[in-house]
Parts: sequence; C-alpha cells; structure tokens
Amino acid sequence: MNKGQLLYEGKAKRLYATEDEQILFVEYKDSATAFNGEKKAEIDGKGNLNNKITTLIFEKLQAAGIASHFVKQLSPNEQLVRRVDIIPIEVVVRNIAAGSLSKRLGFDEGTALPRPIVEYYYKDDALGDPHITTEHIDVLGIATATEVEELYKQGLAVNDILRPLFAEVGVELIDFKLEFGRDGAGNVLLADEISPDTCRLWDATTGQKLDKDVFRRDLGNLTEVYEIILEKLGGK
Amino acid sequence: MNKGQLLYEGKAKRLYATEDEQILFVEYKDSATAFNGEKKAEIDGKGNLNNKITTLIFEKLQAAGIASHFVKQLSPNEQLVRRVDIIPIEVVVRNIAAGSLSKRLGFDEGTALPRPIVEYYYKDDALGDPHITTEHIDVLGIATATEVEELYKQGLAVNDILRPLFAEVGVELIDFKLEFGRDGAGNVLLADEISPDTCRLWDATTGQKLDKDVFRRDLGNLTEVYEIILEKLGGK
Repeated sequence: MNKGQLLYEGKAKRLYATEDEQILFVEYKDSATAFNGEKKAEIDGKGNLNNKITTLIFEKLQAAGIASHFVKQLSPNEQLVRRVDIIPIEVVVRNIAAGSLSKRLGFDEGTALPRPIVEYYYKDDALGDPHITTEHIDVLGIATATEVEELYKQGLAVNDILRPLFAEVGVELIDFKLEFGRDGAGNVLLADEISPDTCRLWDATTGQKLDKDVFRRDLGNLTEVYEIILEKLGGK
Repeated sequence: MNKGQLLYEGKAKRLYATEDEQILFVEYKDSATAFNGEKKAEIDGKGNLNNKITTLIFEKLQAAGIASHFVKQLSPNEQLVRRVDIIPIEVVVRNIAAGSLSKRLGFDEGTALPRPIVEYYYKDDALGDPHITTEHIDVLGIATATEVEELYKQGLAVNDILRPLFAEVGVELIDFKLEFGRDGAGNVLLADEISPDTCRLWDATTGQKLDKDVFRRDLGNLTEVYEIILEKLGGK
C-alpha cells in the first residue's frame, strides 16, 4: 500500500488515500493538544506510542469480537484502516468520576460510579464539542436512533473488554472516548484511536495518572507514562 | 388557611406551612434573578403577575387533565398548593431553538426544531444547574427510571396543551421549564410555577419577547410584557 493524497489532517493524525478506495493510510503525529486546541505541544515519540498502543488495543478488541476500522500497523507511526465516514459524536464511557463528569455532578475525582455510564458529545470544534443527548442527536440529524443504540451498546461492550484487560496489568480504566464511522455498506464500525490520548488510565495501586491528563494538567513527562501503558499491554 | 412557619425561601417564592400538613402556602416575591442568581432586581408587581399567570395556566392544565400541586389562588400574590418533595430536576421542553440550546447546537435563535425535545438540568445552584442525561440522573439517584419516563411524558403532554393555548392568542411557546414533586403517596405531580419566568414566549407576529429574557437581556420593562401575557390568557 502506498501513501496517496492527504485527505484530512486532524489534531493528532493525518489520513491519506491508498490505491484501494476502501483503505486509508493513517500517520500518527507527535502533536499533543488539549482544551479544544487551546493548549498545544510537539512531543517527540508520542505519535509512535499512540500508534502502537492503538494497534495493540484494536487487535485485542478484534480478538474479543469487536470489529473496527483497524487493518494493520505498517511502521512505528503508521497504520492502515478501513475507510469510514466518521459519525460526529464522541461516545464517552465512564467507570469512575473524573474530568468534566466530576465538575458536572459534583463528584470527587476517583468516585466509583454505581455502573458504567455513556455520554455523547457533538464533534464540533466551533461549538467546543458540547455535551448532547439522544434528543439533540435526533434533531441534529447526525445519527439514527438505531445507530445511537449501536453506539451505546458498543461503548459498553468495549468497556467490558478493556476494563479487565487493563485491570490485569494494574491499571484502572477510569473513562474513555470512542468514535465510530459508517462503512460503504452503512455499517457502524468502531474507528479513530484508543490510546492514553483518549482514555483516562490510573495506576491501580498508586493512582498515578498514565494518560493525557499528564499533559493537560502539567503532571510530568507524557512519553514516560505512555511508555508504561505500552509495556503493560505487552508492547515495547 | 393561615400562613404558618416559613419552610423555604427560593429566588422567586416563599413557602409556608398551613394548619393542613398536606397543604402549603406560597407567596410570590417581586424578585427577578437570572444567570444562577448573578443578576438580581426587585420589580414591583412581578409576584402578583406570576401568581396570576401560574394560576390561570395550572387551571387550564387541570381542566385538560394534567394534575398539579395547585389548589387555589388566595390573593394577588398568594396561592395554596399541595405539599410535595421537589425532584431536583428541571425538565425543559423546547419547540424552537433559543437560549442555551442555540449555543449548544449552533442553531440560530428562532429555528424551529423538527419535533419538541425534552432536556434535564440538575437543580443545584452550587453546580450551576448543569445539563444532565437520564444516565446522570440514574447515578445521582435523584429519580427512578419510571419517574424519568413520567417527567418526559408529562413534559410533552403539557406542551401539547400549552402550545396551542398560547398560539390561539398570538403567542409562540418557544420553550419552558417544569418542576415536579412527589406527593405523600409517591406520585409524581407537576409543581412549582409556569409563568413568563419559566417560559420563553414570543409574539407570533412581531417576535417581541414576552418573558424573562426582557430582564436577562435588558430588553425593556418586564411587568409590561408580563401584563400582556396575563391579558392574553384572559386575566387582568
């Protein structure tokens, strides 16, 4: 597969066409951004780490029966994925209160929720990715009721696989964000990435943050903690 | 009925005990507040207007089969209501985009929604009455799933009565906020008030705002527009 025309450049990745219309070439960038792009940095090695971690996680999910756009890793910072039209909804699954949920509900960070919950955010930078409900999704016309049900179920199914997977290596999966896309046949497929950029991961013993909050909150060296996650997942 | 001990003082009303444990005495205040209490004013006559308008609306709703806490008007600014424990959820029903929905979804104010939608806000001043979902309501433990279903259905049922009622007198019901409480038997009952403090009401011809946005946005004399609503509803 050869890297063709640049189709899209996001905050963390570039997408290129390939000679196969159904396959895209993804290049992970070394950029870190937070707070809707207000905080930015270039961090050497971040792209490689997220590419490797996402690859490991998508492989484990596929082995557990969760289909995704992932095809294969090509190089330290490149992978091939199936082409999908991204549904502009961030699906957030939460096990433990942190971040915006703590602020919204007044729960201390680290409070276990009685059950995992699913939230939706409208992927729209100009609006600041607002928190939305199924009612808003309906009037926006960005997904059908059947698709939203699928997002909800898949969000919880991914959680049911990833939470024990991280727990086994001493990491608590606090919350994470998923994105989905429609393939050529209109099927909803897990897409984007799953990495410490998109998950909150805390050391189950020490509580150390092993995710992008290290960058958001200036808590230390981002690549050092991403390396810990990669190693715990069996990568190098 | 005699006014007993002051039980609660809110931004717009005082609640007193009566000699009947199941009945409360409500006194509407002349206070206007907005933006979670950041903007405040005393406006002569506002309490009377809201008491009269709420009375007319609860009477019309009861005639149409919607039970509420309302018992009867006692004086220009006083009414009797059944005692309920307020469920700390503001139920917002929207027909036309305005206010926070316009900001959230990027819809111009005045954009008709394809169908009425229902939103929930957590009544918590310290948290700024945050926008919440049924998932949040569940983990907060503030209402059961059956109760939330009831709030949703009653919200739309009230809309189905009030929207044509206002339309007949040349007023467009843009959106409104309802509160509900549990009576002694645990039944969910419509409560609080329904007035230009809790509804957005626009003149259907001129678009003139006939509600609390006049105060929020400094658009003119609040009591003048509340008088218009009272008269249109057949009050004086």
